[in-house]
Amino acid sequence: MIVDCALYRDGSRTDDDSHWRELKAKATGDDDFVWIGLHDPTPEEMHDVAEAFGLHRLAVEDAGEPHQRPKLERFGEMVFLVIKTLWYVDAEDAVETGEIAMFVGKDFVVTVRHGQGNELHTARSALEHSRQVLDHGPGGVLYAVIDRVVDEYLDVTDELVIDVDEIETSVFSADRTNDSARIYVLKREIAEVRRAVLPLREPVARLASGDIAAVPEEATPFFRDVADHLARAAETVDSLDALLSTAFDAHLAQISVQQNDDMRKISAGAALIVVPTLIAGIYGMNFRHMPELDWSFGYPFALLLMAAAAGGLWVLFKRSGWL
Amino acid sequence: MIVDCALYRDGSRTDDDSHWRELKAKATGDDDFVWIGLHDPTPEEMHDVAEAFGLHRLAVEDAGEPHQRPKLERFGEMVFLVIKTLWYVDAEDAVETGEIAMFVGKDFVVTVRHGQGNELHTARSALEHSRQVLDHGPGGVLYAVIDRVVDEYLDVTDELVIDVDEIETSVFSADRTNDSARIYVLKREIAEVRRAVLPLREPVARLASGDIAAVPEEATPFFRDVADHLARAAETVDSLDALLSTAFDAHLAQISVQQNDDMRKISAGAALIVVPTLIAGIYGMNFRHMPELDWSFGYPFALLLMAAAAGGLWVLFKRSGWL
Amino acid sequence: MIVDCALYRDGSRTDDDSHWRELKAKATGDDDFVWIGLHDPTPEEMHDVAEAFGLHRLAVEDAGEPHQRPKLERFGEMVFLVIKTLWYVDAEDAVETGEIAMFVGKDFVVTVRHGQGNELHTARSALEHSRQVLDHGPGGVLYAVIDRVVDEYLDVTDELVIDVDEIETSVFSADRTNDSARIYVLKREIAEVRRAVLPLREPVARLASGDIAAVPEEATPFFRDVADHLARAAETVDSLDALLSTAFDAHLAQISVQQNDDMRKISAGAALIVVPTLIAGIYGMNFRHMPELDWSFGYPFALLLMAAAAGGLWVLFKRSGWL
Amino acid sequence: MIVDCALYRDGSRTDDDSHWRELKAKATGDDDFVWIGLHDPTPEEMHDVAEAFGLHRLAVEDAGEPHQRPKLERFGEMVFLVIKTLWYVDAEDAVETGEIAMFVGKDFVVTVRHGQGNELHTARSALEHSRQVLDHGPGGVLYAVIDRVVDEYLDVTDELVIDVDEIETSVFSADRTNDSARIYVLKREIAEVRRAVLPLREPVARLASGDIAAVPEEATPFFRDVADHLARAAETVDSLDALLSTAFDAHLAQISVQQNDDMRKISAGAALIVVPTLIAGIYGMNFRHMPELDWSFGYPFALLLMAAAAGGLWVLFKRSGWL
Amino acid sequence: MIVDCALYRDGSRTDDDSHWRELKAKATGDDDFVWIGLHDPTPEEMHDVAEAFGLHRLAVEDAGEPHQRPKLERFGEMVFLVIKTLWYVDAEDAVETGEIAMFVGKDFVVTVRHGQGNELHTARSALEHSRQVLDHGPGGVLYAVIDRVVDEYLDVTDELVIDVDEIETSVFSADRTNDSARIYVLKREIAEVRRAVLPLREPVARLASGDIAAVPEEATPFFRDVADHLARAAETVDSLDALLSTAFDAHLAQISVQQNDDMRKISAGAALIVVPTLIAGIYGMNFRHMPELDWSFGYPFALLLMAAAAGGLWVLFKRSGWL
Repeated sequence: MIVDCALYRDGSRTDDDSHWRELKAKATGDDDFVWIGLHDPTPEEMHDVAEAFGLHRLAVEDAGEPHQRPKLERFGEMVFLVIKTLWYVDAEDAVETGEIAMFVGKDFVVTVRHGQGNELHTARSALEHSRQVLDHGPGGVLYAVIDRVVDEYLDVTDELVIDVDEIETSVFSADRTNDSARIYVLKREIAEVRRAVLPLREPVARLASGDIAAVPEEATPFFRDVADHLARAAETVDSLDALLSTAFDAHLAQISVQQNDDMRKISAGAALIVVPTLIAGIYGMNFRHMPELDWSFGYPFALLLMAAAAGGLWVLFKRSGWL
Repeated sequence: MIVDCALYRDGSRTDDDSHWRELKAKATGDDDFVWIGLHDPTPEEMHDVAEAFGLHRLAVEDAGEPHQRPKLERFGEMVFLVIKTLWYVDAEDAVETGEIAMFVGKDFVVTVRHGQGNELHTARSALEHSRQVLDHGPGGVLYAVIDRVVDEYLDVTDELVIDVDEIETSVFSADRTNDSARIYVLKREIAEVRRAVLPLREPVARLASGDIAAVPEEATPFFRDVADHLARAAETVDSLDALLSTAFDAHLAQISVQQNDDMRKISAGAALIVVPTLIAGIYGMNFRHMPELDWSFGYPFALLLMAAAAGGLWVLFKRSGWL
Repeated sequence: MIVDCALYRDGSRTDDDSHWRELKAKATGDDDFVWIGLHDPTPEEMHDVAEAFGLHRLAVEDAGEPHQRPKLERFGEMVFLVIKTLWYVDAEDAVETGEIAMFVGKDFVVTVRHGQGNELHTARSALEHSRQVLDHGPGGVLYAVIDRVVDEYLDVTDELVIDVDEIETSVFSADRTNDSARIYVLKREIAEVRRAVLPLREPVARLASGDIAAVPEEATPFFRDVADHLARAAETVDSLDALLSTAFDAHLAQISVQQNDDMRKISAGAALIVVPTLIAGIYGMNFRHMPELDWSFGYPFALLLMAAAAGGLWVLFKRSGWL
Repeated sequence: MIVDCALYRDGSRTDDDSHWRELKAKATGDDDFVWIGLHDPTPEEMHDVAEAFGLHRLAVEDAGEPHQRPKLERFGEMVFLVIKTLWYVDAEDAVETGEIAMFVGKDFVVTVRHGQGNELHTARSALEHSRQVLDHGPGGVLYAVIDRVVDEYLDVTDELVIDVDEIETSVFSADRTNDSARIYVLKREIAEVRRAVLPLREPVARLASGDIAAVPEEATPFFRDVADHLARAAETVDSLDALLSTAFDAHLAQISVQQNDDMRKISAGAALIVVPTLIAGIYGMNFRHMPELDWSFGYPFALLLMAAAAGGLWVLFKRSGWL
Repeated sequence: MIVDCALYRDGSRTDDDSHWRELKAKATGDDDFVWIGLHDPTPEEMHDVAEAFGLHRLAVEDAGEPHQRPKLERFGEMVFLVIKTLWYVDAEDAVETGEIAMFVGKDFVVTVRHGQGNELHTARSALEHSRQVLDHGPGGVLYAVIDRVVDEYLDVTDELVIDVDEIETSVFSADRTNDSARIYVLKREIAEVRRAVLPLREPVARLASGDIAAVPEEATPFFRDVADHLARAAETVDSLDALLSTAFDAHLAQISVQQNDDMRKISAGAALIVVPTLIAGIYGMNFRHMPELDWSFGYPFALLLMAAAAGGLWVLFKRSGWL
């Protein structure tokens, strides 16, 4: 589906609502360019656009199917970029991923989006209000999209920081919590984020280095800024992963400590019953000469003895921390 | 065994069914080339072909025996490539490995296949229908074979992802499952895949860099695409390996938690018996003056007392989660 | 808030107390420069200064909001540096972080500080008394600030060494201590320090390499010295992190050993009661012919037997280390 | 001890049995060279040879004492190589190490061997029958020795693979095996192998790169082949090490699972005795009115009751998998 | 304190006992040089020497205070080296560290030593008897000192190997040993050694590369030899560290196995008492018709039955390995 299409001239969007083929034909000025936005395109749409703009077969294949790896590829003057989008779904405490493929030529930008999140509409609007970026032409669009996606990476890592904090609290709480499943799931989410962030560093570094024709020299600081944000996301993610591993070890230690505590509690409890049982056994013996048996208060005395023994043990165990 | 042999001219297969030596003699045109396919060749077959095409002694030795490492070697104009093939056997949930050795010269391709899987027949057919690739001559064949093998790597990693998901479900299920053997086996399979994937990255990168004569400049994007798929396989495999390690730790935690639960259940169960035993012991004492003993309903009273004690403990333990 | 502003001429501070705009206008001499210090500036202050000195939009954005990554960026002749400050709060055994952003031009230095710690006042005073550094102009100021911040890193790592020593003592003490929470928190602090130290290495290395215009050739040994201190901090932090992991494992081992000791103590204690219970059971049997039952001292004999059995077991267990 | 010495001319060994000094004097032709083989030489022998061939002091020191690190050193035209030899002693399931030092000059080869294994005699014989290698002169000898040693590395790693398989079987067998000592020993052997294999990669890579004068350009593919075998050995060793770590974790999990099983078995067994004891306790109570006590078949009834309780519990525990 | 000072001329020490300032003045010949040795110098001594030889302020600061990182710094023609010294204190099984700072100029060497160990006197004597090294002038002194220090690293690692062997024996012995503290301490020592060894590799590599003016081209093999020894120390240390980690895991496994053995022994022991208790309970029942009670030998029969039950269980448990 073609979700938006416009002709940009002199750093701002024209009102022209024509079909994208016509817009393409009109983009004859030096700084004119067309931006076509596709979302989950059919093979036919993909094919039409590819033919019209002379996109490379391999890039079109990659753009057509989701689950690609972030990468930057140059085909002559054209740049092809795949970037993964991330967003955090609060309801499920989960990270979802989508994908954007971009073809950036001298006078056109084609963006192909897969998955639900990260619609590019707001990025486009923001861009259309920032002449400074738009002046850079298709390279400016490239920057705007990457910048927005990477900013969302930082939002996601912020959410993950909160999740790790929650797990931390749970691990070290006095409650018996079984946190291993949560830690596992979070580690999995983090691996997902890492798969989006890490392979993107090399493409962004190349864009920042200035040897990609589509990015003018004066625009490289912007890409260095993105590279820096990316490095921040990568560092956060690595550091969270390491923290979770430590949290897991701490969780294991807590389980062991609790088991130890339980074992001692159980033993102390058992002693409270076993000792009176011994006393009962003693007065159940059949010796002919057992003076206590003939006492009038022998029975209450025995019960008291049992209670005293149990009570004494109770105090003892309480003091030594076993109960 | 020679499984297939053909002469290719002007980007398509000729019908000529002659012996490979004759085909070789006919491949005189600029773009002509012969493709001979061997499968588990005898030393004699290997020797004949090596002599006819002037293959290097070391490469022939490597091609003749299986269990080589993926590698790319140049001998003058000729390129020698060893690549490991992988396929997933559903029946056994296991990854099997084979091997293909390729000699690619100016006017010939010799492929030597070891092991069962990944026959090259379908790759050859597919190639014969794609003039675009075949036009690149022996370099195109090189691409077609590598591309097919690497695509199968991705199929295998997809299956491994499913296996890891199953293990995950099993680890976190309430059932008592002993997953360590399965995790171990899967880690072993993953190590196998890694041994095929990782050493291949350097050869493919060299093919993509354009300084291998057999690969024309305009064909390098195809090899970069393969390199990208390879990177994807490597990332998946690394990430699965890390996930399995975490799953293992989680499995250990589950075992500990279950042991703890069992211990508490056992203790609670023991209390249900030990307390009535104490009561029985008390009424088994031989004191002369024990009023209960003379009651008409002393015996049912004692039984009731025992049942009440056991019942009370039951409720108590249920509430505190010990039973 | 503008916390300090001065004009430096011929390697020393002038008395001129004018507004910073006037000072800027007066800095016309070859070695004259203005140093403006901001602390948690409002967007307006930031904007004014940025406009006056022609600071780059991206750098101003980064300087305006805290939680940036340490980095060095060149915009033409100007250098922009972000550096994290660390200090140790004794009361909480915690590491706090702040941030300093610096803009260093040919004739000006703008420092923007976020957070509480590491006020730059003392650094400035120290610098004003050291003509040797001040002679290097804005580059000297750059050095002075980095040097001071990195020296504080070393102070922080010294404190962390003490914390690790304390944990070590606690882990290997005979007391039952639950050190996992403390180890976790310290690992977290260390990760914080690492996030400040590690990304700073690359900027400092670039300053030491001599290809940053603001740093004259003869000043590079000073930056190499800072790089060396930074390396020391990084090595200490890595080594503490590894030690803490080992301490954690040792803590787990201690827990296991203690559980084992407890289990044996409990079992030995149980034997002391169960064996007399058996004896009591035997003399509670109802056989007609049990000679002991008719003895005059049968009862004391039975009690003695119980005591002897318990005493014998006690000695036995003490000797074998179970009690 | 000088174990062998010969003059090689025109690619084959001469019959000349003279003293090595004379052979050296006769090696005047362009392709003539002398090969002296020493085994655990005395300092005097070492000194004589060193002086005669002008070997560098440092290299002679290294060759004279064992336990060096694999390395390649150039002294002018001469090449000095230290290589570790490995062999597997079946009787002890252990890897033994030895050492070979080689001095390779324009017209001589001096090999110094330490330790028992890997005598060079068979390597020399094999070489003397392979004119192709011998034609390359001293460089060919260098290749022949390294090739043989590295082939033995692969034999050793094959044996280690078998050992790891055995451990695997043992870990996952139902038997109670204490595999930690075996895993530890094997990890130690693997570390030994790694210390031989890994540092050799750089010297072999340099020999394969063609910038060592003693190795003619056309011989570099042979060294690349050795480098490839070395890489294979290194990969195998790394992968075995990782597998052993996983096997260790699995072993720990097995221990935990077995402990859990034991605990449940013990508890179930205890229940089989404790419940009848309660019943016996009940019929041991002294109530005046207990109808069962007066039944003719009260006693057999009670015994049956006990047996039924125990039997019922048995079935219950069997079904739930506790026994 | 100035511990030694001498003028070296033509490759040997002169007898001149003058004050170092005079010796410095006399060192006018081409190959003349002065070597001043300081030990824990006062700031004044340091200052005097620094001024006389024109040493750089930063280097003097670093030389004056201990606990620096190993490093090599060039100030014009002068080379400044910091190196950590290590020695093993047998009495405490501990590694101690000291420090040597060296200033090496065209015609002087200043060595500053901190800490107890590694006095340089014997190194100086050895050097004075080896014209070959001394001929290289100050560069030869540099080599002699580094060589000696690195040789002592190897002595220390040899001692650590012995310590690890002892721990190994202890871990796998049948005794109940708590080795975690010893392993921890040894890991800490190893970390200390690593902090001395690893950062020194880069300075030594630079000295071996031949682009440090103070080291003549023909002296580089000597530094390559040192680099090789350093690599050996680093490899040993890494390998010991990995072995200790494995030993720790094995130690944990031993603890678990012992706990399991204990648990089974305890349970078997409990059974030996609980079963006779049940029998006693049975004969303590009050049924009117219990034929055994009236037997003349009923009581001995019951005792025998108990003994037989306990004995039978004993045999059973012995056979199954529980006792």
